[in-house]
Amino acid sequence: MKSSLLKRLVAEFLGTAFLVAAVVGSGIMAERLAGGNTALALLANTIATGAALVALILTFGPISGAHFNPVVSLADAMEGGLAWAETLPYSAAQISGGVCGAIAAHGMFGLPLISISHHVRGGPAQFLSEFIATFGLLSAIWGCSRSRSSVVPFAVGSYITAAYWFTGSTSFANPAVTIARCLSDTFVGIRPADVPLFVVAQIAGGVAATLLFRWLVPNLAQGAKDVVMPHGSES
Amino acid sequence: MKSSLLKRLVAEFLGTAFLVAAVVGSGIMAERLAGGNTALALLANTIATGAALVALILTFGPISGAHFNPVVSLADAMEGGLAWAETLPYSAAQISGGVCGAIAAHGMFGLPLISISHHVRGGPAQFLSEFIATFGLLSAIWGCSRSRSSVVPFAVGSYITAAYWFTGSTSFANPAVTIARCLSDTFVGIRPADVPLFVVAQIAGGVAATLLFRWLVPNLAQGAKDVVMPHGSES
Amino acid sequence: MKSSLLKRLVAEFLGTAFLVAAVVGSGIMAERLAGGNTALALLANTIATGAALVALILTFGPISGAHFNPVVSLADAMEGGLAWAETLPYSAAQISGGVCGAIAAHGMFGLPLISISHHVRGGPAQFLSEFIATFGLLSAIWGCSRSRSSVVPFAVGSYITAAYWFTGSTSFANPAVTIARCLSDTFVGIRPADVPLFVVAQIAGGVAATLLFRWLVPNLAQGAKDVVMPHGSES
Amino acid sequence: MKSSLLKRLVAEFLGTAFLVAAVVGSGIMAERLAGGNTALALLANTIATGAALVALILTFGPISGAHFNPVVSLADAMEGGLAWAETLPYSAAQISGGVCGAIAAHGMFGLPLISISHHVRGGPAQFLSEFIATFGLLSAIWGCSRSRSSVVPFAVGSYITAAYWFTGSTSFANPAVTIARCLSDTFVGIRPADVPLFVVAQIAGGVAATLLFRWLVPNLAQGAKDVVMPHGSES
Repeated sequence: MKSSLLKRLVAEFLGTAFLVAAVVGSGIMAERLAGGNTALALLANTIATGAALVALILTFGPISGAHFNPVVSLADAMEGGLAWAETLPYSAAQISGGVCGAIAAHGMFGLPLISISHHVRGGPAQFLSEFIATFGLLSAIWGCSRSRSSVVPFAVGSYITAAYWFTGSTSFANPAVTIARCLSDTFVGIRPADVPLFVVAQIAGGVAATLLFRWLVPNLAQGAKDVVMPHGSES
Repeated sequence: MKSSLLKRLVAEFLGTAFLVAAVVGSGIMAERLAGGNTALALLANTIATGAALVALILTFGPISGAHFNPVVSLADAMEGGLAWAETLPYSAAQISGGVCGAIAAHGMFGLPLISISHHVRGGPAQFLSEFIATFGLLSAIWGCSRSRSSVVPFAVGSYITAAYWFTGSTSFANPAVTIARCLSDTFVGIRPADVPLFVVAQIAGGVAATLLFRWLVPNLAQGAKDVVMPHGSES
Repeated sequence: MKSSLLKRLVAEFLGTAFLVAAVVGSGIMAERLAGGNTALALLANTIATGAALVALILTFGPISGAHFNPVVSLADAMEGGLAWAETLPYSAAQISGGVCGAIAAHGMFGLPLISISHHVRGGPAQFLSEFIATFGLLSAIWGCSRSRSSVVPFAVGSYITAAYWFTGSTSFANPAVTIARCLSDTFVGIRPADVPLFVVAQIAGGVAATLLFRWLVPNLAQGAKDVVMPHGSES
Repeated sequence: MKSSLLKRLVAEFLGTAFLVAAVVGSGIMAERLAGGNTALALLANTIATGAALVALILTFGPISGAHFNPVVSLADAMEGGLAWAETLPYSAAQISGGVCGAIAAHGMFGLPLISISHHVRGGPAQFLSEFIATFGLLSAIWGCSRSRSSVVPFAVGSYITAAYWFTGSTSFANPAVTIARCLSDTFVGIRPADVPLFVVAQIAGGVAATLLFRWLVPNLAQGAKDVVMPHGSES
């Protein structure tokens, strides 16, 4: 049974807030403790993020589908899982949740609540990285959710754990998280000027994967609509 | 079928003892071997704690619900899963188990069995951290246990793995563990004077999450009472 | 229901491309950040590879069986899971996917798209390592897929995570990945001259394990043909 | 359906061989690469061992129960899962498998095939550590296998991952592995003179946990005999 839109938006807000708090907070902790060893800092940041994704998708999936990501909501709408009219409220909840998550992380470490990042992340290699990162993320979601939605939390958590390391951009793969991270002048930040390119690459990668999987697994698309996204966000 | 209260208390005692032994023991081992690299020590401490939680909740869940945490027992009583009269015995078993776990960890490393911690952990950022840490822990428990209790061990283990890094306090999130850790003047210790603030923040965060999820997932609360907590502690 | 051969080949191509991109890309990132600490670099490389395998087998398993490995396709054909006529197309898709994955990884890090490796990996200890590595990989696949195919992604991801460390060769265990890695003059590369010995050892280890498990678990071979490989590639 | 004794012994031999190869081999690799950083070496050793256990129990569980450990076979016999007459053959297969695993690991790294360890591991703290380590291991097995045997691989893998760090002895918890490790003068070795004390502590801890869980979960002991051990070794 579907939850009301309000409850689903609260779940998307909270889940994205915790996700960004996990990314930003673990980045701060890791940078503080790692004494300049960037590989160690990124490893801690990776493990915290991957584990947070598993926990958060398990927690909020049954309520809202646990998108936490405007590209995932867009893709779900493309496949008929989410009503098109709900994509904007979903994205707004995700972006505002992400911003609050960054603020909460800063508060937990006694930092100014907002600080604009100066971390430069640009150029074609970064664009390619974000395209591939989001292409892979949506592939994992569509590959799993159409037939075995209970494994989506583990597939997504594992995928992002890997993608932090195998993409040149450390795999943001999420416009809401990208916007939130430009408000954090820390290890995980991104300069506001670099955000648009990231978001364009993410949307392109996500749409491409969705179209590909529409062809790859077509016969499942109709019968399995009620498991199209992790848990019951269909309308 | 419900186990007798005695058996459930033994399970809570043993499980909390192993949990605290895992936290304290791995902290001692990590500090000894890490040669001053705190990020590496915390990473080992994190992996040991998260893995211990998975194993212990799987092991003791079917017997007592595997709370290991007075805030979880309180929340379970609020939702009708645990009889109110059993919350005090549960908490006593958890606290005494935690103290014995700290003693056992010290014994396994040839240290004095009890040593009062001098590790200062105070201030508003720590309070906020413990509030958020416990809010998230109870969110994970309620989000999962109401419909899919078999994933609770993985959700809780993953959540704490992340929260060790993304909160400024390394996420104690448990009054029994907090009390036990003030008896360990090691990497994971906490000064007794800082314990009350931690406990207040933990209770506040846990109660807030419980009330929120009572609203977020109401229609599941009745029908699924027998899976309200991980495994069968309902009365 | 079986997917068409074209769709299965696209899945094998994409999955192997992502697998090699994960191996090569995380190796580049790890080497860049680790400041000469090879243990830390290999640990990051390991975690990224193991997590990628879990995500990719979950994602592409339902479509093509998620072999990503000519030895796995050969073994599947030996046991009647894959038509013999399809082993060559499968292998071609895997090898070309692997090469494209290496190119993509180099592109994401702004490196020349192809560079021949000078990493020497030879001698009897390396041969023994690859024999044992692939023997264990096929054991894990046959041990799990005959009765509980849903655990294959976790068994394979865990196995390779371990085998990166316990074999002297860091466990390539896959001819398609081995060929692709000779095109990457980075942390994970292998000199072209050493490829043939690796491939021979891999085939020998894979065939030996397949014959052994044919004897160890014979009564499951017939009834469970539809789960012989992870997910539905039988013909 | 039960496999023949010969097949079960082959599975125990192979599984224990791979387990010891994983412990010893990853220890050698970790020590070589870690440049004297013992925490990092133990972390790699831990992750490899925990992951190997998950893969190996998933692989060999359906055939032999995946004991790989004479204390587990003894405990299984105490509870009626394994015929008493089969405990000696099981133990012999495990011990010989462990020795071959150590030899294989040395071979994969180009070391002398056998070397007697000089690593001193003695004293009451080590005895207590091995008692607790094995008590916890058997608790995890009995707590999970009586009602949900499919989670045993994950419970055991997670438990040992934690116990490597929280016990003062790095949790051998297995007489077959202990004997094999005295033949390896490497990071993970143990002096032969210290083996008897370890084995006594392991048996004591395992028997104590088995007796405790006989009381804690009695009503499951009869009905669930066919899942008493991970997978089908009952007679």
